[in-house]
Amino acid sequence: MKYVYHFSNGSADGSSEMKNLLGGKGANLAEMAKLKLPVPPGFTVSTDVCTHYYDHNQTFPDVLEEQVLSALKSVENEMGKTFGDEDDPLLVSVRSGARASMPGMMETVLNLGLTSKTIPGLIKQTNNLRFVYDAYRRLIMMYSDVVMEKAGGIEPEDGGGIRRRLENILDKHKESNGYTSDTDLTGDDWKLMSELFKEEIKNTLGHDFPDDPMEQLWGGVESVFRSWNGTRAVNYRRIENIPDEWGTAVNVQVMVFGNTGDSSATGVAFTRNPATGENKFFGEWLTNAQGEDVVAGTRTPNPLSEEIKTQDTEHLPSLETSMPTLYEQLAEIRTTLENHYTDMQDIEFTIQEGRLWMLQTRTGKRNGAAAIKIAVDMANEGLIDKKTALMRVNPEQLDELLHPALDPESENTATLLAKGLPAGPGGASGRIVFTANDAERWKSDGEKVILVREETSPEDVHGMHAAEAILTAKGGMTSHAALVARGWGKCCIVGCGALQIDLAKREIHVNGVELKEGDWITMNGTIGKIYEGQLNLIPSDPEKHHEYKSLMKWADEVRTLKIRTNADSPDDAAQARAFGAQGIGLCRTEHMFFDEERILAVRKMILADNTDDKRSAVMELLPFQKKDFKGILAAMENLPVTIRLLDPPLHEFMTLSDDQMAELAESVGVEKSDVAKRVAELHELNPMLGHRGCRLGVAYPEITEMQARAIIEAAVELTQEGKTVYPEIMIPLVGTVTEYQNQEKIIRSVAESILSETNVELNYTVGTMIELPRACLTADEIAEYAEFFSFGTNDLTQTTYGFSRDDIGGFLPEYLDNKILAHDPFQSLDIKGVGKLVSMAVELGRGVNSGLKIGICGEHGGDPASIEFCYSNGLDYVSCSPYRVPIARLAAAQASV
Amino acid sequence: MKYVYHFSNGSADGSSEMKNLLGGKGANLAEMAKLKLPVPPGFTVSTDVCTHYYDHNQTFPDVLEEQVLSALKSVENEMGKTFGDEDDPLLVSVRSGARASMPGMMETVLNLGLTSKTIPGLIKQTNNLRFVYDAYRRLIMMYSDVVMEKAGGIEPEDGGGIRRRLENILDKHKESNGYTSDTDLTGDDWKLMSELFKEEIKNTLGHDFPDDPMEQLWGGVESVFRSWNGTRAVNYRRIENIPDEWGTAVNVQVMVFGNTGDSSATGVAFTRNPATGENKFFGEWLTNAQGEDVVAGTRTPNPLSEEIKTQDTEHLPSLETSMPTLYEQLAEIRTTLENHYTDMQDIEFTIQEGRLWMLQTRTGKRNGAAAIKIAVDMANEGLIDKKTALMRVNPEQLDELLHPALDPESENTATLLAKGLPAGPGGASGRIVFTANDAERWKSDGEKVILVREETSPEDVHGMHAAEAILTAKGGMTSHAALVARGWGKCCIVGCGALQIDLAKREIHVNGVELKEGDWITMNGTIGKIYEGQLNLIPSDPEKHHEYKSLMKWADEVRTLKIRTNADSPDDAAQARAFGAQGIGLCRTEHMFFDEERILAVRKMILADNTDDKRSAVMELLPFQKKDFKGILAAMENLPVTIRLLDPPLHEFMTLSDDQMAELAESVGVEKSDVAKRVAELHELNPMLGHRGCRLGVAYPEITEMQARAIIEAAVELTQEGKTVYPEIMIPLVGTVTEYQNQEKIIRSVAESILSETNVELNYTVGTMIELPRACLTADEIAEYAEFFSFGTNDLTQTTYGFSRDDIGGFLPEYLDNKILAHDPFQSLDIKGVGKLVSMAVELGRGVNSGLKIGICGEHGGDPASIEFCYSNGLDYVSCSPYRVPIARLAAAQASV
Repeated sequence: MKYVYHFSNGSADGSSEMKNLLGGKGANLAEMAKLKLPVPPGFTVSTDVCTHYYDHNQTFPDVLEEQVLSALKSVENEMGKTFGDEDDPLLVSVRSGARASMPGMMETVLNLGLTSKTIPGLIKQTNNLRFVYDAYRRLIMMYSDVVMEKAGGIEPEDGGGIRRRLENILDKHKESNGYTSDTDLTGDDWKLMSELFKEEIKNTLGHDFPDDPMEQLWGGVESVFRSWNGTRAVNYRRIENIPDEWGTAVNVQVMVFGNTGDSSATGVAFTRNPATGENKFFGEWLTNAQGEDVVAGTRTPNPLSEEIKTQDTEHLPSLETSMPTLYEQLAEIRTTLENHYTDMQDIEFTIQEGRLWMLQTRTGKRNGAAAIKIAVDMANEGLIDKKTALMRVNPEQLDELLHPALDPESENTATLLAKGLPAGPGGASGRIVFTANDAERWKSDGEKVILVREETSPEDVHGMHAAEAILTAKGGMTSHAALVARGWGKCCIVGCGALQIDLAKREIHVNGVELKEGDWITMNGTIGKIYEGQLNLIPSDPEKHHEYKSLMKWADEVRTLKIRTNADSPDDAAQARAFGAQGIGLCRTEHMFFDEERILAVRKMILADNTDDKRSAVMELLPFQKKDFKGILAAMENLPVTIRLLDPPLHEFMTLSDDQMAELAESVGVEKSDVAKRVAELHELNPMLGHRGCRLGVAYPEITEMQARAIIEAAVELTQEGKTVYPEIMIPLVGTVTEYQNQEKIIRSVAESILSETNVELNYTVGTMIELPRACLTADEIAEYAEFFSFGTNDLTQTTYGFSRDDIGGFLPEYLDNKILAHDPFQSLDIKGVGKLVSMAVELGRGVNSGLKIGICGEHGGDPASIEFCYSNGLDYVSCSPYRVPIARLAAAQASV
Repeated sequence: MKYVYHFSNGSADGSSEMKNLLGGKGANLAEMAKLKLPVPPGFTVSTDVCTHYYDHNQTFPDVLEEQVLSALKSVENEMGKTFGDEDDPLLVSVRSGARASMPGMMETVLNLGLTSKTIPGLIKQTNNLRFVYDAYRRLIMMYSDVVMEKAGGIEPEDGGGIRRRLENILDKHKESNGYTSDTDLTGDDWKLMSELFKEEIKNTLGHDFPDDPMEQLWGGVESVFRSWNGTRAVNYRRIENIPDEWGTAVNVQVMVFGNTGDSSATGVAFTRNPATGENKFFGEWLTNAQGEDVVAGTRTPNPLSEEIKTQDTEHLPSLETSMPTLYEQLAEIRTTLENHYTDMQDIEFTIQEGRLWMLQTRTGKRNGAAAIKIAVDMANEGLIDKKTALMRVNPEQLDELLHPALDPESENTATLLAKGLPAGPGGASGRIVFTANDAERWKSDGEKVILVREETSPEDVHGMHAAEAILTAKGGMTSHAALVARGWGKCCIVGCGALQIDLAKREIHVNGVELKEGDWITMNGTIGKIYEGQLNLIPSDPEKHHEYKSLMKWADEVRTLKIRTNADSPDDAAQARAFGAQGIGLCRTEHMFFDEERILAVRKMILADNTDDKRSAVMELLPFQKKDFKGILAAMENLPVTIRLLDPPLHEFMTLSDDQMAELAESVGVEKSDVAKRVAELHELNPMLGHRGCRLGVAYPEITEMQARAIIEAAVELTQEGKTVYPEIMIPLVGTVTEYQNQEKIIRSVAESILSETNVELNYTVGTMIELPRACLTADEIAEYAEFFSFGTNDLTQTTYGFSRDDIGGFLPEYLDNKILAHDPFQSLDIKGVGKLVSMAVELGRGVNSGLKIGICGEHGGDPASIEFCYSNGLDYVSCSPYRVPIARLAAAQASV
């Protein structure tokens, strides 16, 4: 069995197709090697080893050692250096690399191979004592943290582990020597630091720092595999839905150094702008630095080229002017990579003494606007076709375009606190919190928060996820905070140097203003401005985006699934229509009963003890309902509107205080005790499974009659005004065909009498919401009568799982943590269980009624995975909330592709 | 299309196979005619006419009149008399006859054809003016009631309709003439009555009594068809689950008279005793009477033969001695009918002037004990085979044998109030009510009632159904009350002449004791004794019944489905085992937590805020649980015992008063507010869909661990004592295979550690309750791990329908009334919906695990229709409550047959 895959300049065992086995980084290193790009030689230990490691009580396959040693030998031969050699030692790095990108979530160890024996040789070779001891101290800091402490199973102490202790030693040394920056330290300083570090390690961790190069190498490799199950990585996988079984690969690669002097440099770049999608080579670099210096945001990096300079970076040197030949070479590589991968790439490079090395390429993360622009541009450039362009945008990313922005008027008059780098566009308001844990806690208490940090680290991911927006004092556009926020389409401002954060006091001082935990601020992530207080947000208008419009046009050309919206008011209907909705899939009528003018009639009905009184109370609602329906039908002229008859249990209309009971009793003319008695009667132990849905219509046929009358009269009047409307009357919560027949009879009889009286021809249909397992199981019986089905997958999920959505909070977190559920089934449709019922109902229903119109109107109607399921099961449409309509349009197009 | 089927002595168009078309009565009249038994000629108008009548706006098919007239002509030719003839008129009756027997639920009209023109001729022919006018007044009384008032759509006034008015006229006349009985009236009296009746009819109903024989005939025929949809018939069909679509036939038959003098008589008989099953010709008769006189219970009838005389009837004349030749002829007919039908028959006969006429034969209703004895006897006699015998007993009838009887000791010391005829065996206690409506109302308020009436009529059926028992002052063993009660296996005493019932005052005076509404009485229906107060009831011991044992032996030989029981205690287990249970299918463990000694530990666990405290609280329960399980496993030695792990939501253990909260807080050592907070946290909106079942075990793994330990330790100790036990550990409410795996892991690990410590070999299995739609839909996944499935069809019905069993009362009655549901799905399994899930789960489960043991443990496990479904779906066993075990054994045998 082959576990180790070699790569070097011009050749490789692997390729970019082998991501599952080699991880993304390893596969792309192999691919770049084959493209003859300058990749430092190395080898990848496959994900199979990770699987083996966890399946076999954390041990490696027997043959692994031999394969690693053989691969290492090849690398040594290519480089003409030997690992652990006393005269000219080879140094290597170990880096993780999983199938899916998990930036910063796993461990890296650099400079492996430096020992008391190899250091003198390297100093001789490089003639640079400072560089060697700087490299050594970096090895010690990383290795002691990653390999000895974390992977060694040592619990870091409060206040940080060994790394923090070593940093303290360094800080003290700098302080006592009056140094302000790491660059101030001399070679001897670093040598001293190395000694002090090793002493501290021995005292704290109880072990000597390993001085054997092979021990270092194996320790590094194992620590990467162990970091696959570290807390950060596990949390990240939970958020991103990455299976635990995938495992990570480990890349062992010859070290190249961007920090050997001023002819060395390091940088990260995107082949196009990841925030806007602009076709400009976008990146940052630093001279005399290692890669981590750029990403960590500890030094403010320089712009890559002249054309991407901004007001803030104008004064900084670009690579283009500083090292024009190398820039030219890099720009050529950019073109090679884009042409080869036909997608925007995120690359890392290092220049060691005038020679360019490519350390990584991968498909670059981008925010929604950029994703759209890049996809549409590339299609227009002929690099990809339109269908590929459609697949390039994650439908959820459209959400960013649809997210609110700051109201310009309120922004104009607001108090500007500071300005930072616009790392994630859009607007957000929230209350200040200072730690990731606080963000998560406040969020779960229902607060909107903005997480404010010096800089973020992978440890903060859960809090960043919980926050409305992220604000950091340090870091650049490719800092951790910026990368993560862009991936999620979250508003984010980084590098706002004006912020003075006092974490202990939970205070910020910014340009003379003092802000405390819980204070409101508002951010405009598109331009990087931060304001005091809570400003108005306004919905964005995606129609302004030229590329968005192109993409949606292509999507509409491709997709066959129709997209409707769930809307209960003419305003919502109009908004959804503007977003491209092709009708209303669910118009709920219950909120129309709660209006103050109307609820008295509802309560009268509930209190009535005879049919006549019930009837006359219900009929008081007719004019109101008719007006409601006219408004909605008119807003959706020429498009179908599915109106659901009254659904909730009656007790929802009878939540009354003592005073209200007395008042109601008086206005209806009964005793207060009668009201109380009726309220008690309506109480149910499990209202979700109680007297609701069509069960109400059976018990109160006058409600069905009144609602049918209101709908049909509204439609008739609009027809008489020359409008074309398509009302679809939906009977809720049907479990047996007999319920359907009972209600349909009432509706048809009302409709036919109105239509024959008015002599109007109207295209109306009657159908049902399929939201109970029994409805799915007997869909053939129901479809003999119903003209349409609309899956109410919320309730269907409740009954299929036996989960009350209101009570699931008691055990869902535990279920997700224990992997008993892969995701919340109310968020994304459970294909295996609920989906099976849906498929069955479609098949049974269409079996007896081939013209049956079928849609879905639960929350799942806006979830891309669920939309794909609906498409592949032959549904006619999905219906979702107005703001998710564009997302659903794209998801439907992707399903078709 | 043939609508009318003729029958006469020796020939007939129909046969007993044609019940669907001719109804039971018509088909059997045809069959008797073919057997050359003396049947008065006539014809049957088929049920197709009934269907046509209701499908065509209550009109008859065009060809009907011609077919009826032609059939009537045949009858006239055979009899040599003509309908409506002035000299020698033919009289006919019209009687209903549906596919299923609906005794007394529809209308009958006798003596049709008597008019002002035919009366003189008939008087001349019979030379009996009194007989003719008696017949005429009977025609008037029936016809005005049935045809003119009820079928005419006239709502009877309060206090009774036209019939009551005519009876009042008769009563007044009797009073003013000092008559005490109808037999005192002379011919002239009856003539006068006829005149007064006709006058009253014209005044009250606004129509002349029809004097045209054909008008009378068609009026009678139509009234029978209309009575199919009368309130009584509809109610009866609802109780007996008879489809509305079946319709009734109408039989038109030549009148024969048992009331033309002392050589005439009428009677009803059973070919065997319907109360005991004894092979004795059992019946009652009256001289000079019409059939209704016997059935109505207005005159106490005579015993048919000498051998069936009892202490109470010793002094009365038997037909055997009074008319020996005719008795001999009747006894021969009895043998002919039993040999022909190979079942006990219920017959009606009339003797007109020394000539015997057979008016009806049908399969006789019988109570459970009689059904068993007749079936077993007939099989032993060689009349039927054993399999037929098994099919002859409705499993539900076994219930009667299993019903409680009076405790002899308490009966010996009780105050005997009176004695009546033992019409329905068994014992019953209840509170006195006087009307059917009261019986129904009290019952729905949760009261046990005994319905006490002068005599019952079909109008009382709903109240008889509601009552524990029925007691009447009048009537014989074949009276309405007796027939109906026997059909239902209900305790019943009739003809208790000592009762003086004052309906207005709601009082009874009986042998010097005054009883009021609501007073308790107790009845021994087996011997006909009535006692004051509420006496002890004891379970019957069916094993004493010789034929019961034979039948159950035959059943066990035939059936393949195993029968288990639901039992939570050693006593219940022993009782079920005595009834033939082959194991426990469901042992619930939650009640074991409620014991006073234990619940504190449960509450401690609920209040614990850390794993250690939780664990130690739970472990306090271990010794108790172990003792519970030892008892049950020992009681079921050598048989499997399925033990379900804790299932109910925790809040069920925390229903606490304010004082109890304080007490609990003190004994656990927390603040009262903490207790209150925890109680509030546990509150759920829909607990049925909340944190219960295996969701508890996931959150509180220590509960699963403790219960698994208690079960396995109990089993190990019993094994060490030399007993063989088969514990089956059942994980409740599994919806995903991951839940199952999570819990199974805990159980296996506890079990394996105990077994390896003790070095005991134990046959234990782990499986799950399948009670959620999702479990059925993903049964293949679950069956890869589970060793058995047990369908919890109660919860499965709740989730499949979306019906909360606790709240269904709010709409179920309406659903049954409106035929939206044919029956309560919690009583009898919904084959179409829930059944489809069960079938699917069996197929999916066995598909991956052919050895999967499958059973059912919901309420449906004791329902014969559901048992048949379980058999045909290949289940291994059903489990039901102990008292239903014999019923399930028989039902399972019937399913196999």
